[in-house]
Amino acid sequence: MSQGPTKPIYVLNGPNLNLLGVREPHIYGKTTLDDISRSCADLAKAMGFTVVFRQSNHEGQLVDWIQEARTEASAVVINPAAYGHTSVALLDALKTLSIPIVECHLSHLATREDFRHQTFVSKAATGIIAGFGAKGYELAVQAAVHLIAAKA
Amino acid sequence: MSQGPTKPIYVLNGPNLNLLGVREPHIYGKTTLDDISRSCADLAKAMGFTVVFRQSNHEGQLVDWIQEARTEASAVVINPAAYGHTSVALLDALKTLSIPIVECHLSHLATREDFRHQTFVSKAATGIIAGFGAKGYELAVQAAVHLIAAKA
Amino acid sequence: MSQGPTKPIYVLNGPNLNLLGVREPHIYGKTTLDDISRSCADLAKAMGFTVVFRQSNHEGQLVDWIQEARTEASAVVINPAAYGHTSVALLDALKTLSIPIVECHLSHLATREDFRHQTFVSKAATGIIAGFGAKGYELAVQAAVHLIAAKA
Amino acid sequence: MSQGPTKPIYVLNGPNLNLLGVREPHIYGKTTLDDISRSCADLAKAMGFTVVFRQSNHEGQLVDWIQEARTEASAVVINPAAYGHTSVALLDALKTLSIPIVECHLSHLATREDFRHQTFVSKAATGIIAGFGAKGYELAVQAAVHLIAAKA
Amino acid sequence: MSQGPTKPIYVLNGPNLNLLGVREPHIYGKTTLDDISRSCADLAKAMGFTVVFRQSNHEGQLVDWIQEARTEASAVVINPAAYGHTSVALLDALKTLSIPIVECHLSHLATREDFRHQTFVSKAATGIIAGFGAKGYELAVQAAVHLIAAKA
Amino acid sequence: MSQGPTKPIYVLNGPNLNLLGVREPHIYGKTTLDDISRSCADLAKAMGFTVVFRQSNHEGQLVDWIQEARTEASAVVINPAAYGHTSVALLDALKTLSIPIVECHLSHLATREDFRHQTFVSKAATGIIAGFGAKGYELAVQAAVHLIAAKA
Amino acid sequence: MSQGPTKPIYVLNGPNLNLLGVREPHIYGKTTLDDISRSCADLAKAMGFTVVFRQSNHEGQLVDWIQEARTEASAVVINPAAYGHTSVALLDALKTLSIPIVECHLSHLATREDFRHQTFVSKAATGIIAGFGAKGYELAVQAAVHLIAAKA
Amino acid sequence: MSQGPTKPIYVLNGPNLNLLGVREPHIYGKTTLDDISRSCADLAKAMGFTVVFRQSNHEGQLVDWIQEARTEASAVVINPAAYGHTSVALLDALKTLSIPIVECHLSHLATREDFRHQTFVSKAATGIIAGFGAKGYELAVQAAVHLIAAKA
Amino acid sequence: MSQGPTKPIYVLNGPNLNLLGVREPHIYGKTTLDDISRSCADLAKAMGFTVVFRQSNHEGQLVDWIQEARTEASAVVINPAAYGHTSVALLDALKTLSIPIVECHLSHLATREDFRHQTFVSKAATGIIAGFGAKGYELAVQAAVHLIAAKA
Amino acid sequence: MSQGPTKPIYVLNGPNLNLLGVREPHIYGKTTLDDISRSCADLAKAMGFTVVFRQSNHEGQLVDWIQEARTEASAVVINPAAYGHTSVALLDALKTLSIPIVECHLSHLATREDFRHQTFVSKAATGIIAGFGAKGYELAVQAAVHLIAAKA
Amino acid sequence: MSQGPTKPIYVLNGPNLNLLGVREPHIYGKTTLDDISRSCADLAKAMGFTVVFRQSNHEGQLVDWIQEARTEASAVVINPAAYGHTSVALLDALKTLSIPIVECHLSHLATREDFRHQTFVSKAATGIIAGFGAKGYELAVQAAVHLIAAKA
Amino acid sequence: MSQGPTKPIYVLNGPNLNLLGVREPHIYGKTTLDDISRSCADLAKAMGFTVVFRQSNHEGQLVDWIQEARTEASAVVINPAAYGHTSVALLDALKTLSIPIVECHLSHLATREDFRHQTFVSKAATGIIAGFGAKGYELAVQAAVHLIAAKA
Repeated sequence: MSQGPTKPIYVLNGPNLNLLGVREPHIYGKTTLDDISRSCADLAKAMGFTVVFRQSNHEGQLVDWIQEARTEASAVVINPAAYGHTSVALLDALKTLSIPIVECHLSHLATREDFRHQTFVSKAATGIIAGFGAKGYELAVQAAVHLIAAKA
Repeated sequence: MSQGPTKPIYVLNGPNLNLLGVREPHIYGKTTLDDISRSCADLAKAMGFTVVFRQSNHEGQLVDWIQEARTEASAVVINPAAYGHTSVALLDALKTLSIPIVECHLSHLATREDFRHQTFVSKAATGIIAGFGAKGYELAVQAAVHLIAAKA
Repeated sequence: MSQGPTKPIYVLNGPNLNLLGVREPHIYGKTTLDDISRSCADLAKAMGFTVVFRQSNHEGQLVDWIQEARTEASAVVINPAAYGHTSVALLDALKTLSIPIVECHLSHLATREDFRHQTFVSKAATGIIAGFGAKGYELAVQAAVHLIAAKA
Repeated sequence: MSQGPTKPIYVLNGPNLNLLGVREPHIYGKTTLDDISRSCADLAKAMGFTVVFRQSNHEGQLVDWIQEARTEASAVVINPAAYGHTSVALLDALKTLSIPIVECHLSHLATREDFRHQTFVSKAATGIIAGFGAKGYELAVQAAVHLIAAKA
Repeated sequence: MSQGPTKPIYVLNGPNLNLLGVREPHIYGKTTLDDISRSCADLAKAMGFTVVFRQSNHEGQLVDWIQEARTEASAVVINPAAYGHTSVALLDALKTLSIPIVECHLSHLATREDFRHQTFVSKAATGIIAGFGAKGYELAVQAAVHLIAAKA
Repeated sequence: MSQGPTKPIYVLNGPNLNLLGVREPHIYGKTTLDDISRSCADLAKAMGFTVVFRQSNHEGQLVDWIQEARTEASAVVINPAAYGHTSVALLDALKTLSIPIVECHLSHLATREDFRHQTFVSKAATGIIAGFGAKGYELAVQAAVHLIAAKA
Repeated sequence: MSQGPTKPIYVLNGPNLNLLGVREPHIYGKTTLDDISRSCADLAKAMGFTVVFRQSNHEGQLVDWIQEARTEASAVVINPAAYGHTSVALLDALKTLSIPIVECHLSHLATREDFRHQTFVSKAATGIIAGFGAKGYELAVQAAVHLIAAKA
Repeated sequence: MSQGPTKPIYVLNGPNLNLLGVREPHIYGKTTLDDISRSCADLAKAMGFTVVFRQSNHEGQLVDWIQEARTEASAVVINPAAYGHTSVALLDALKTLSIPIVECHLSHLATREDFRHQTFVSKAATGIIAGFGAKGYELAVQAAVHLIAAKA
Repeated sequence: MSQGPTKPIYVLNGPNLNLLGVREPHIYGKTTLDDISRSCADLAKAMGFTVVFRQSNHEGQLVDWIQEARTEASAVVINPAAYGHTSVALLDALKTLSIPIVECHLSHLATREDFRHQTFVSKAATGIIAGFGAKGYELAVQAAVHLIAAKA
Repeated sequence: MSQGPTKPIYVLNGPNLNLLGVREPHIYGKTTLDDISRSCADLAKAMGFTVVFRQSNHEGQLVDWIQEARTEASAVVINPAAYGHTSVALLDALKTLSIPIVECHLSHLATREDFRHQTFVSKAATGIIAGFGAKGYELAVQAAVHLIAAKA
Repeated sequence: MSQGPTKPIYVLNGPNLNLLGVREPHIYGKTTLDDISRSCADLAKAMGFTVVFRQSNHEGQLVDWIQEARTEASAVVINPAAYGHTSVALLDALKTLSIPIVECHLSHLATREDFRHQTFVSKAATGIIAGFGAKGYELAVQAAVHLIAAKA
Repeated sequence: MSQGPTKPIYVLNGPNLNLLGVREPHIYGKTTLDDISRSCADLAKAMGFTVVFRQSNHEGQLVDWIQEARTEASAVVINPAAYGHTSVALLDALKTLSIPIVECHLSHLATREDFRHQTFVSKAATGIIAGFGAKGYELAVQAAVHLIAAKA
């Protein structure tokens, strides 16, 4: 198990986010996931943190990574994408964590289809940031750092 | 990225379809998935197309294949099986495509359990063919070819 | 009562389909119902069948025709249009048939208003084809011929 | 307008009842509608009444006959069949009557599909008799005669 | 166990029916339960049957009587009153019977409060007669006799 | 096809409105449909318009008339009565029109039974006037004339 | 308390209507509330009435004005805007009135979001006029005058 | 009307937020609304903006302030508190704005009572930040500044 | 802040209660709010307490008074009237109190319209008294005194 | 039948209340049912009344006692406990009474599980008192006496 | 009160279980309740426990026995049968126990009618065993013994 | 394919169960999955069976294992964890089996969040055991052995 203060913030991304900048740009914008990864890393670095940034289309893989974060991360920022709405497995994995959890969505869920209005992830997260596109990741990392500090 | 006219039609199959001909034959018949693969290939060939025919029990694998189809296929015929009813991830992957999408089910969903009456996949598909058993794949491939032509 | 093998396929059409090509062309296209009637007849002929093609705005008339089909048709292809969603009478009439029933819709019901997502007709039909416009009728006639053969 | 005491009892039948004895005999039995018509007439005659017995597959025709019953009948026995579940028009027509209304169904609605559990007709009827097959018509005519007497 | 043809028809009555003629007469009329008991006995006698007529305010008592009817009755006519809407125990007891079951209600349930529109008893009964007041018992006994004969 | 400015306003009436002045006068008043027809004609005439005023108990007939109005009317005022609540066929017919549609009801739907609170017709109408009895037709004709003018 | 015949018609307007002509003009048009006030005054004057025309963003203020109307007005025309959907307080205030109440909405509620389909105000109003923009106020004032006359 | 670039960000607060630091501190923390007002002002100043910070327990007052923001603000940050869940009036006021709207909540709505899971305000807001206590206001002001810049 | 034992009981009244004795007397009786105020004061006095008795049609005003009660009252008796059913703001204000809260309604909510069956206020109140008209206020004041004593 | 003014008040208690003071004391307190019986008797005596105080775990027994109260009591105070939520039989029994009925619950139903929020008993009761523990019985007896007097 | 270690396990059975082996044997098998009683006694004996085995068709009787178990049993195994779905009284009785409660059903509730999918008893039970027929009682007794030991 | 009598019992475990003993121990206890694996193996061995014990966080992996069990196992004990509530794919895989299926859950689903009350797995399982923690696996293995024997 790694040491507390130097543990990275895990930024985990769910299905189809690898297509960011390609998929439905009128909703999600043209920034790619790599762009977001870099801006998160830069922002975290400026606040004395590192970031582990990952994406998967596989629900089980995301569960594995969340379980890994239990011992290896200081906080989790998660954009569960579609799995946020359907995965109790993600919720159960997140509930095993005792570190801060920040849920982040590119689009504003409340203005999309009904089945996107709520997420299982929300039941385990400390808070949510949604609707600000790529900018939301920066706010989420800030929130995570704030919560780590508040807890320390 | 491959060239337009020679791109194959992707025929993607969801969980448990590998057991076709074995599982609940009173509902699904005795034709195997290999039989269907061959009849799709033959029919497509007769119309000047090739078929990429795949099956997986893994939601994430299906998402990966749909993403691959974005640049490599001229159309997608998909029998999402159980994931049709539960997977927003498949829906989001399909929404990234600008090629025709034909949803296909062996059984008539409307006469089965309530939770099978609707699919997330339907929200992204051009049309649906359900209830005609293995024959439905042939109709679906025809529909796909028709839609490719209509678009050209 | 007429003889089996020479019995025609009944293609029955519900309310407002007589306006096809005029009504909301962005949803239904510009093909007229006469065009469809001809293409169904041609396709059926090529497969050794004849077609009886009718349309009515009157629910009771459609019930009468379905009852007639009990003894006079080898299969029914039905696009119930609006009555599909509201008519238990059509359902009950269809349930008296022992010949194949293929439900056909021009538009993809699953992507329209909620009250169009399900039909009573589906509870009696062998299968459904929806979302392929006029082309769907051809697929439906093929499906009907396939089902007649499978039954023989 | 005809005279009170000699007015007949109208027995009105909804869609597909003309197929009685043919359609789904495991549910409805083998008695034909003509058989029922005769037994109603006989029973009514024995009690000093006549019967007007009609069937239609057309909702509007049934509305017309109910309106006619307003001035021409001493009571209405109605088996609305499928229209019972969907027709507010029948309900509104029945609400214009001030004579007894007896609702009658061959099968027991409560043990069939959910959408058959309730009828609009029930909101205007004095009472209901369901589940006794052809025998139910006899009970209904008796009930009608009883209600006419109770009112006199 | 007693002999078939001479077994009585059980007429069972649920809670508060002992107050008949007193309770809410604008809904239920002025006839008392004793009056009904007598008219049922007379009618049954005329058709060669006897009647066992009972009432209880206790759900368990009614369950006991229905169980008794399993071996001692040729048919059950039951007006479950309030327990019809709430008692799965009555339903389960009735489902152990292989003799005809006729459900009977004084008022027309469909025109009263929503929670009275359906009964658990209906799921086990052969048919229902509702809305004809005390007269309904006579119709129910006739229906029972008819069903016994049809079964014999 | 007739000429624009001289095209009449179609005032179409649904089932049971032919009994107006007879049926449930405590809800609908004593004015007959003929009275309303005359007052509509007079009012329209004063504004330079003619009126085609019709009533039918048949859903299919109303669909036919609405289709006729597509080319023959300058606006449609429709009191669909019971069919407003149940007819998708009327809705689909109305959606084929590009002229103003004014929905009119004698009673205030919002204060009647739940199933009367909404109409399918409302989804295609420009506006609604309900609760003012026969007077509502006059307001509706005024509204229609206003909308024709606004469109010109 | 003022005298009957000379009492004005209160035209009360709910939240955000002060922005009329500015807010979402594609839904509500460019006419301002002052324009409407003037046209109501002119129309009323022509029929021998005066109008008190007010607007408030405060629910409590609207309740106060309705209470004032109890003794000071001959009728109330009310466009409750957003409060129509959420305010039981307005409903209770309106139910204290014994004068005619006409509900008026600029847009057609039935074609907007679900939560706008019904109003509490409708439960107390005599009738409703919706979907005709500013013109609807004129129709409403006419309806109010008609109802005052009918009552006199 | 004031000039664009120098217009302040309006930070509007709904009912009971004046008790912040007092009311249910286990949910909302001990920071007071004045503390938050100062930190917002400081943060905005650092980014070249000013803040107008207000609170009211009156729905109508909040509507008035949002209307004022239409011409006087460059963005609105709003914590509608209880009115978020019940006020269509706030929603309608916000929909008149063409400047960025950021919704902010101290607690994570998704983990509280069902009736707090959704807000009407969300339907008009660009995005939402919830669950981070007083820190959320800082994130919201950053988001607002980001959106103003993105729009410029 | 005033001293504990001498703090008054706040009796707060919601919208339209100022019309008590006038509004729908068949439901609420003829007693005026002033009569109730006096009887509460007398009863409280007899038990050694004073009463602050207020009424407002404004939700925000009621929120302000409840906040004032936080430091100035020994208990709150509240008849929220219509706001009980719609106001989360009242609920949130009441939840800031640590003194007894007694909810009081003149009519029996359970026998009125569905939307009156539950109140948000109930979620914060110690108990409820409903259906006893003006007498209910006296019972509520007694309950409040009892709860103050139980807490002391 | 006993004489009016000297008839006792029946205080009837449903299932598990015999365990009062034992069962879940954090919700119901430590007072026993005997304590409550005595305080009711004392209070009634002071007002010139007697009390018949009973408890049963049997629904049918409670129905019997309510029927007895029809002729033997001047009012009924009833704490139906669990049967309040499930017993239509109790409701029907109570509806046969023409004397005042006061419903009383120890806990505040609105703050417990959903299935306890409403009772069938409420549909027949004059009013309800809930949430005040044993004290509620005293308030209920007072209410009963008040209602007897108001009726006299 | 008896001594802890020697207290028996109460095995309580709800309505119609006395007919076990008779009623619907295709669902419940041919084993009688006496058979089960003996196998429970034998199994318990082998583990050093005794069993009190009872059945009743009366809800109140079951409540009485559960209350008795409070002081006389070391655990309760309960097959509530039909009352499991409808009885809040059983739930409340069970909630007064501080000993282990094991719910047991012969059939698998999840595969039967909707109204059997959930039980009130489950809200108080430690765990559930369903679908294993008579064998389930043995598993339940084992579970009970395990829970007694775990608690000791 | 292996031989019948020597085929092992498959014990399959869903997502996050690998954290057992770590994750939320107040709900799931401190026993690890390895402990359970050993106790299942020991118990099975004592009854002449072997166990294949596996866990995966991947839905597709679980589907693969269930398909393997079709030919390689004598029974399946499955704790689907989160996937029980969301996976139709697991259900479909289980429906292909003709061997006994025992569903097992550590916690009592009925007392947790609503979305955990039902599982898709239940629709294919023979029975369920829930709420007994690690002990439940032993009961499940016993049940499986019992069902294998009953089938043999």
